[in-house]
Amino acid sequence: MKKPEKITSRTADFAKWYVDVITQADLMNYGPIKGTIYFKPLGYKIWENIVKIVNAYFVKQKIENVYFPLLIPQDFIEKEKKHIEGFAPELLTITKVGDKNLVENIYIRPTSELLFADYFKAEIAKNNILPIKLNQWSQVLRWEKTTNPFLRNTEFLWQEGHTIHASKVEANQFAKKIARFYKYFLENYLAIPVISGQKTEREKFAGAVNTYTVEAMMQNFRALQSATAHFLGQNFAKNFEIFYKNKENKSQIPFQTSWGLSTRLIGAIVMVHSDDNGLIFPPKIAPIQVDILEFFSKKNQEVKIFAKRIAKILKNAKIAYKIDDTDQQIGYKINNSEVHGAPIRIEIGPNEVKNNQICLVRRDNHQKFFFNIDLLKEKCRKILEQIQADLFKKAKIRLLENTVFVNSINEFEQAIKNNKFVIAPFSESPEREQEIQEKTGATARCILPKNSFFALPQAGNSIFSGEKTNKFVLFAKSY
Amino acid sequence: MKKPEKITSRTADFAKWYVDVITQADLMNYGPIKGTIYFKPLGYKIWENIVKIVNAYFVKQKIENVYFPLLIPQDFIEKEKKHIEGFAPELLTITKVGDKNLVENIYIRPTSELLFADYFKAEIAKNNILPIKLNQWSQVLRWEKTTNPFLRNTEFLWQEGHTIHASKVEANQFAKKIARFYKYFLENYLAIPVISGQKTEREKFAGAVNTYTVEAMMQNFRALQSATAHFLGQNFAKNFEIFYKNKENKSQIPFQTSWGLSTRLIGAIVMVHSDDNGLIFPPKIAPIQVDILEFFSKKNQEVKIFAKRIAKILKNAKIAYKIDDTDQQIGYKINNSEVHGAPIRIEIGPNEVKNNQICLVRRDNHQKFFFNIDLLKEKCRKILEQIQADLFKKAKIRLLENTVFVNSINEFEQAIKNNKFVIAPFSESPEREQEIQEKTGATARCILPKNSFFALPQAGNSIFSGEKTNKFVLFAKSY
Repeated sequence: MKKPEKITSRTADFAKWYVDVITQADLMNYGPIKGTIYFKPLGYKIWENIVKIVNAYFVKQKIENVYFPLLIPQDFIEKEKKHIEGFAPELLTITKVGDKNLVENIYIRPTSELLFADYFKAEIAKNNILPIKLNQWSQVLRWEKTTNPFLRNTEFLWQEGHTIHASKVEANQFAKKIARFYKYFLENYLAIPVISGQKTEREKFAGAVNTYTVEAMMQNFRALQSATAHFLGQNFAKNFEIFYKNKENKSQIPFQTSWGLSTRLIGAIVMVHSDDNGLIFPPKIAPIQVDILEFFSKKNQEVKIFAKRIAKILKNAKIAYKIDDTDQQIGYKINNSEVHGAPIRIEIGPNEVKNNQICLVRRDNHQKFFFNIDLLKEKCRKILEQIQADLFKKAKIRLLENTVFVNSINEFEQAIKNNKFVIAPFSESPEREQEIQEKTGATARCILPKNSFFALPQAGNSIFSGEKTNKFVLFAKSY
Repeated sequence: MKKPEKITSRTADFAKWYVDVITQADLMNYGPIKGTIYFKPLGYKIWENIVKIVNAYFVKQKIENVYFPLLIPQDFIEKEKKHIEGFAPELLTITKVGDKNLVENIYIRPTSELLFADYFKAEIAKNNILPIKLNQWSQVLRWEKTTNPFLRNTEFLWQEGHTIHASKVEANQFAKKIARFYKYFLENYLAIPVISGQKTEREKFAGAVNTYTVEAMMQNFRALQSATAHFLGQNFAKNFEIFYKNKENKSQIPFQTSWGLSTRLIGAIVMVHSDDNGLIFPPKIAPIQVDILEFFSKKNQEVKIFAKRIAKILKNAKIAYKIDDTDQQIGYKINNSEVHGAPIRIEIGPNEVKNNQICLVRRDNHQKFFFNIDLLKEKCRKILEQIQADLFKKAKIRLLENTVFVNSINEFEQAIKNNKFVIAPFSESPEREQEIQEKTGATARCILPKNSFFALPQAGNSIFSGEKTNKFVLFAKSY
């Protein structure tokens, strides 16, 4: 029999705990190039589930899927300096094909604004129809100095949406709408509460006018930027000379948005919900919702038959299950199920068979339930719903308990030192933000909207300058 | 009003006709780098439909989806010389990141055998469980000299499946099984009849022991290799030193397969079924199965209401439809529908509304049907089935009529000159195949299996050497 590996505890070493969980839960193996990973079946299945839900929303919004090239030519790169400056050090550059040198370098997309701008230009010149709302499911590559599986990979999977509109207001509203959807998706499907708001000038996307972000709190109280939507204004349209004709047949420059979420969310799911025994999946996104564990099935065929009965009921209820019919020890099977994160496990031994009884255990709080098999479908559904709600509640309480409001530099620095999310009245310069980062390690995560769930005052005094301001900014150490 | 562009006729210039169709039908735009394309919404939707059907089969076969890196390191490349020789001139090579030179070159995957071998090695060392059956939906890049949208792109989308088995027979059988599925998929969903068989030594995949292929005939009688499955033997396993322990705890080298189909199939659909008016989609793969054309709807609100009634019926019947409610001329609308390939269009004018009548036109043969709206669901379904069957039949007759059996060099050369698929008794060397290609432009497409639908003799005399052989090989000019 294989011995289970030991998972480092979160308190001992959070970073090591994270890597232990994602490797032992078979989400990924390290790839051969720095910062790349092999998405294993379970890890990739999480992404497939995310894609399914998010894509259904896009279809409803009449956003159409496309696929655009991985390769960006030299002359595109030169068109949008500001945008590219942000990515330049990370650009993977192709200079050769076979043993022949290319005349011009080719770049691998770090994001596809340049390609969408090129496409929009041609389409609008041909059809003059706006808005155009597109999305692609693909990967992008950025050569990062520090990498972390899922959270910051050289190559990651994502969706990138790109739209172009005649109206500035319509475009900006559209970016906001997508950001609202991201918040909804994280909270309602991934059970991850977020704080959403606009990025500061310093933190916004290279080339954007406004960036709207959703920020989540990991169990070590670090922030994770979990999805963003950008209002790009006319920045790309101007550089690519995109024009449409308005009703008066006058040439006008349209407005763009772009927005994305990525496989980084897999890391967020792990870091928000899991524990020292391994992964805990929110039921709505779990690749396997119920593990069925056969005990002593080698000696007792009835156990196998009972497992199949259970499987049939779950299948009809559209609950994703997996049967562990291996010859491993009971302890190993339970441990293995806990490591891999199925929200529920059902344990079947000869006793259960004899009594037509289900022994169900919640992964998150180890609560045990015993009931007749006739109640299985109903109970399972209810308990899965309960787990989903409880995981969200737990994460939300953590977020609230560890977010503090401060009014002075001292309080600010102390709170950051204590690993809090810190909200402060703040109307300072990007340079000040940089100072703060250098001194405390914290960055501005977002400007809080007026209607945020924190009962903020109408105005305050910016903590450095003392200037009166109605802007409140969330700061935190982040991934 | 926009004027429709003219599509070149197939007889005038087949290559130009193809490009006219795929661009005017909005399947793609050319990308900024040679051989790359922008998959437009309609073009990408074909791929999404293919993915859905093929993936469902994989799930049934317990093949698990993964995602592996785009990047291959230098030392992997050096491990499998024979395999890489086949791809070396096409390898896109990354030598720089930002403005820094890399110490070792990085290559973009032209296919992922090397990465899967690396992954299998680690997994089997850890778990010693076989077989492992994986698949990924991704893209690969090959810098081709001559490119052709969908048929031969620098970057194309595909699925690549990779399995590893303890048993040689099991692995080889598995590759054959996948090839059978590919044939089934092409014939039953894409309405593309194929000839399947094993590749000759010269034509097989670089690094494979056997390659199984499905070959289709385009309307210009050229062959298109439409999907392949490879039995890799122990070639990769040996080079990567992959071992498993058998029941006697002895180290053994396992056997691998790999297999794929790609967005090349989009080109095949166009080249097999479409006509001089534009695209014709087989109903089972059509992004839009029914175009609903409103005539005079601006003056007549009843037309709009009738269109919505029709849409509702089609929606309930799960038939994909699109309403053309623009102000374009009737002729333009009909032309536009024909260009974009919906198998059926429904034309609604005031007369139809008055009589509760449907006027339905088949895209493939322009046949018109008139019937009461109450019959819509049933009629639509039946006609879609009929179109699917008719498209397949038409293509199959074309394939049969243009495939000839020859017994001599003269007949062979004449038949190739006449653009036929040519079957000949053939047991010659790879060098002879090369000679044939240089002289006639034809290549060996596959060795016909015994049970092929051509009533072949038991044996014949190889057309060059005269040697007696029971091997019959299909030759054709190909894409």
